[in-house]
Amino acid sequence: MDLEFLQSLALPAHTKMAMIIMDGLGGLPLEAGGKTELETAHTPNLDALAAQSALGLTVPAGPGITPGSGPGHLAIFGYDPIRHEIGRGALEALGVDFDLRPEDVAARGNFCTVDAMGVVTDRRAGRLPTEVSRELAGLLRGIQIDGVEFFVETVKEHRFAFVMRGPGLGEALTDTDPHQAGVPPLPVRALEPASEKAARLAGRFVDRAGELLAAHPAGHAANAILLRGFDRLPSVPKYGELFGLRAAAIAVNGMYRGVARLVGMTVLDLDGVTLADEFSALEKNWDDFDFFYLHVKKTDTAGESGDFPGKVRAIEEVDALLPCLTALNPDVVIVGGDHSSPAVLKSHSWHPVPTLLYGKYVRADGIAEFGERACARGSLGVLPAKDVMPIALADAQRLAKFGA
Amino acid sequence: MDLEFLQSLALPAHTKMAMIIMDGLGGLPLEAGGKTELETAHTPNLDALAAQSALGLTVPAGPGITPGSGPGHLAIFGYDPIRHEIGRGALEALGVDFDLRPEDVAARGNFCTVDAMGVVTDRRAGRLPTEVSRELAGLLRGIQIDGVEFFVETVKEHRFAFVMRGPGLGEALTDTDPHQAGVPPLPVRALEPASEKAARLAGRFVDRAGELLAAHPAGHAANAILLRGFDRLPSVPKYGELFGLRAAAIAVNGMYRGVARLVGMTVLDLDGVTLADEFSALEKNWDDFDFFYLHVKKTDTAGESGDFPGKVRAIEEVDALLPCLTALNPDVVIVGGDHSSPAVLKSHSWHPVPTLLYGKYVRADGIAEFGERACARGSLGVLPAKDVMPIALADAQRLAKFGA
Repeated sequence: MDLEFLQSLALPAHTKMAMIIMDGLGGLPLEAGGKTELETAHTPNLDALAAQSALGLTVPAGPGITPGSGPGHLAIFGYDPIRHEIGRGALEALGVDFDLRPEDVAARGNFCTVDAMGVVTDRRAGRLPTEVSRELAGLLRGIQIDGVEFFVETVKEHRFAFVMRGPGLGEALTDTDPHQAGVPPLPVRALEPASEKAARLAGRFVDRAGELLAAHPAGHAANAILLRGFDRLPSVPKYGELFGLRAAAIAVNGMYRGVARLVGMTVLDLDGVTLADEFSALEKNWDDFDFFYLHVKKTDTAGESGDFPGKVRAIEEVDALLPCLTALNPDVVIVGGDHSSPAVLKSHSWHPVPTLLYGKYVRADGIAEFGERACARGSLGVLPAKDVMPIALADAQRLAKFGA
Repeated sequence: MDLEFLQSLALPAHTKMAMIIMDGLGGLPLEAGGKTELETAHTPNLDALAAQSALGLTVPAGPGITPGSGPGHLAIFGYDPIRHEIGRGALEALGVDFDLRPEDVAARGNFCTVDAMGVVTDRRAGRLPTEVSRELAGLLRGIQIDGVEFFVETVKEHRFAFVMRGPGLGEALTDTDPHQAGVPPLPVRALEPASEKAARLAGRFVDRAGELLAAHPAGHAANAILLRGFDRLPSVPKYGELFGLRAAAIAVNGMYRGVARLVGMTVLDLDGVTLADEFSALEKNWDDFDFFYLHVKKTDTAGESGDFPGKVRAIEEVDALLPCLTALNPDVVIVGGDHSSPAVLKSHSWHPVPTLLYGKYVRADGIAEFGERACARGSLGVLPAKDVMPIALADAQRLAKFGA
């Protein structure tokens, strides 16, 4: 079902919808026959909500596919994550909360070390401290060449997000990063004529950066840059025009704020970086939006660190704050994840994600438990993550009848 | 999976299939935690059949999509309901059992009142009595202009189905109905060159109708007509050519008879309009067809009226007559619906529809209950409604192996 079809059925309504995304929610037991992180967690509030909900397991990008956070989020937001791919360069820029625009061309950047012959001796410039990296980024930021503006935004240690902004820039560019030491950086090449201007200017920027870095006191370690993964934001239809939703995003980390902005959500300001601050923003802004996306990062951080008890605690923290949401009397609530991150795998995984859909007009399964196996018995079945949003819109009475 | 692929696998067989469609079957509980209409109904025969069946929940047109009866039926008949859309004009003609042909152009019509200046003062001509409407329709029916024949078929009160039949008629026409009083009717305009002839003739018919109506005694109220929703039947491959099935339809209401005719079913004559008359037609014609579609209207009528107990009774009535079918020893039986119509919503809805698939070679789930939550546990899972027909054909040993 395509988005244009959904758009043709979108109805205005006064209903309020909330989507709580616990990043990397799905898990695995520590031992065969054991419980997952979510099944282990003590979650009386989620269980009570589950009893009034339809349950299911969402498949973010396709069977067996382990999605990154970009495709995982686009899917749960209702988009086909394979058709609308967010590349690594764009994600890096979103990740530092950079206001990436559709016309910008982005890439991942490294500070690196080259020798007198121009050969890369360390692709990471000795993992230089983030403070130094930030200082060097300041040196390079704001360079303009032929009316094109360049941005260098520190990520961590030697890593930065690189963005070019100006008219007529294509993103079909090759990496300068040779992906190994012992050889010189590669020239930026255009893969199509429309990217030739961008190739030329990126090349000039790389040269200029090398000159500035070499003249800087920190230049003995970081005297050149490497760029890889050039791309731009995909163009996706926005929540406002698609569904008539005034949508708000509540997230601490830049990447999630960026993906939310990409689909047309207003990113809310937070008083702090705790989960309580996020729920507090939900309460404060409740009257001003129709749809709220609230992102929980700790579940994924713990999963990726292999910290099973930490992930259990992160889920319990969400459960403890859930009454802040239910007290607002939402019409529709989605609780799910963008992908699985089982602690035993210490990484994202391909496993379907437990999902709960609550609403006055949801046909509840009567299963009073929120967990992987409980969701496997639910009436949503195993469904593509992108199908959750249309069902939730229907439950919020925001979709008209199709045909007579 | 497309129909051409299925067609390439269709096998002749002597098996008999029956599909009982309870219109708007799926429901919701009256109160959170309660039972749906189907779960409330006392259905010993359906429950016994369920025990020998595979169960599942069908999604008619897509996740979250509330289908009209047209798309709902096309889906359960095995067609993609979004690709094969039946427009409002064509449905209106089917609804009065008009034998609409592929080349016909149809629209919805109203008798209306215009003042001396030609301004619409009442779009419904005071909701004139159906008998008067029928008399006026007789006045206009059979008008011929330039070799094109016009049909005016009463629906109810001021409403009628309008059909143009003749060579070279396109359906890309604008409404004459201004959808408000206080302004004159609009001219019919062609949206593409192939519809210009139809636009011109429809316009002449509207003028001629106005003259005839003004000269009639009832013409003080109904002195003009308004047309809207011009379209034609979609062209769909027929059951005979697709599956090699001699298919029969048993339905009281015109619309369902019309959609059945559209897919190539023979519409059977009935001795009366009760459900017993429908099952009686099934018995009488059992030897002459391979596939029977039997439509039950009351479930939807009750659902749309918000009559929960009425819908329960309508389901129980089907249950009581089910032995008429099972006594015929059918090879495959499908019991399901074209969409949900929960009494609490008083309308069609997007909820998946409980479905039962019985047959000698069906892998039965052993769930001795026919209801929404029982079906959510069934082995058919949550599946697109259009996938039921291929599975049923296989169960009837009517599909050959694919590949070696």
